[in-house]
Amino acid sequence: VKRVLLSGATGFVGRCALERLRHAEVELHAVCRKRPKNPAPDVVWHEADLLNRQDIARVVEAAGADELLHLAWYAEPGAFWTSAHNMDWVASSLLLVRAFHERGGRRVVVSGTCAEYEWSQPTCVESATPLVPATLYGVAKDALRRILEAYAKQFGLSFGWGRIFFLYGPAEDPRRFVSSVISNLLVGRRTPTTAGTQLRDFMHVDDVAGGLVALLRSEVTGAVNIASGEAVRLKQVVDAVATRIGRHDLLDIGALPLRPNDPEVLLADVARLQLEVGFRPTRTLSQGLNETVAWWETRQLGDPR
Amino acid sequence: VKRVLLSGATGFVGRCALERLRHAEVELHAVCRKRPKNPAPDVVWHEADLLNRQDIARVVEAAGADELLHLAWYAEPGAFWTSAHNMDWVASSLLLVRAFHERGGRRVVVSGTCAEYEWSQPTCVESATPLVPATLYGVAKDALRRILEAYAKQFGLSFGWGRIFFLYGPAEDPRRFVSSVISNLLVGRRTPTTAGTQLRDFMHVDDVAGGLVALLRSEVTGAVNIASGEAVRLKQVVDAVATRIGRHDLLDIGALPLRPNDPEVLLADVARLQLEVGFRPTRTLSQGLNETVAWWETRQLGDPR
Repeated sequence: VKRVLLSGATGFVGRCALERLRHAEVELHAVCRKRPKNPAPDVVWHEADLLNRQDIARVVEAAGADELLHLAWYAEPGAFWTSAHNMDWVASSLLLVRAFHERGGRRVVVSGTCAEYEWSQPTCVESATPLVPATLYGVAKDALRRILEAYAKQFGLSFGWGRIFFLYGPAEDPRRFVSSVISNLLVGRRTPTTAGTQLRDFMHVDDVAGGLVALLRSEVTGAVNIASGEAVRLKQVVDAVATRIGRHDLLDIGALPLRPNDPEVLLADVARLQLEVGFRPTRTLSQGLNETVAWWETRQLGDPR
Repeated sequence: VKRVLLSGATGFVGRCALERLRHAEVELHAVCRKRPKNPAPDVVWHEADLLNRQDIARVVEAAGADELLHLAWYAEPGAFWTSAHNMDWVASSLLLVRAFHERGGRRVVVSGTCAEYEWSQPTCVESATPLVPATLYGVAKDALRRILEAYAKQFGLSFGWGRIFFLYGPAEDPRRFVSSVISNLLVGRRTPTTAGTQLRDFMHVDDVAGGLVALLRSEVTGAVNIASGEAVRLKQVVDAVATRIGRHDLLDIGALPLRPNDPEVLLADVARLQLEVGFRPTRTLSQGLNETVAWWETRQLGDPR
């Protein structure tokens, strides 16, 4: 049975990837800064600070994994776009992948981002859209991918790169888009938004995790968009959530200005994910949003998360 | 008086940069793995392993420098093109520049390479030639530059990048091109070479160091080719050396095949270096080669290096 090492296992995507991998036929090793309170019993947990070279060496040695799904990164909402921590995570990711391969690891998948693409292009195609990131976060991920691709080619490592687009789902940080709208409406707070005409590709976090895990377990190499392939306007998302909650009265669509450089259209071509990796999302956007609202409702009633 | 921190101070280019900076009006701090046997007295030496995060923090703190000239890298002849050490040096360079800036550093210059360019282009122009490196070394340097440029822009750091082309000079590793020809001819060994029709831009190591130091002390930002701007065929270099030594009889030009992917032409546009930085090399190729042969002759007579 294959050993899989998962980093970022307690993060938003990582928690779902952990559940997906628990149901794959693998021996699962998870890295986290601090072991969760109710750790899944069929997972080998490794507490480590991946920004520390000695910790990287120790975990890689202890896990002895064949496959690595590396999701750990600095992800503080808002701040991550411009943070100097992006430098540290490039450095640590290079050391981690090298250590993993030299310990006998055979396949690596790392999470990338739609922020690697030039955003003036409406539909992002892995093999065609120019890679001209506009943010430090996007540059850091793009540069990491370039190095890992060259390293993998030089040393015969199997390497995939999953470019995550827009996501949402239960337990998302309430400062992020979908969760902020839901949590505001549920407490009866006025909710101003932009005009919301922007077209985006949204995917439920569990499907994002499913796409990444499917990519890991495949032999597909290079960049693969992890997205639904379906276009939706932000105001449609807001509208669906407000309808489900029954608080259209609180919306103030158009009250906020567009962020400068926010593109009108940012969509993913998903031919690689669906045809080469063979993964399709399991929920419609409507189902996923209902599920997310239900999670917030339960949480507000004081149920344990 | 400005404090300057120099990394790679005991390397081929670094030794010359050290001498150049000793004659600039700066307080010079040099990092090296091991202090040289006869250290220059007017330099503050810091022994450190830059692959170690704690060492980076310690040296940056101790130096408290305003300017950083970062030349340290893995440079084993031949091996550096494909070595996994390139990963470590990207990681360490990111940590070093971040630590330097956060300690109050204002300007950084890092050594890049002509290997960042797509080699199918005859003349490499900083602002125009596609950056499509063909080797792990080239990819690593290219990716490091991308990240540092974005970081510098985000945090207001002044950042220059000196792309080194071909170099030669006294005390070069005898496994490298010019030194290998000289040292072979001097001991009377048959010296096979390729046809040598390739056009290259050669610069004396002391002029390379001069260009890098001039870039550091300027306010020019972005990539700058560090090269002579003069085209010479490899066989002309071999010929000049053999003439100076008087051992044309040992040459076997054309005995070796071209390396695959070795481009016919690889030249630098030097408008930025000469017009913006204001640096011109101080030696002709002929003078530089004579000086280099003389160094080898002295060395062979058993004089201390």
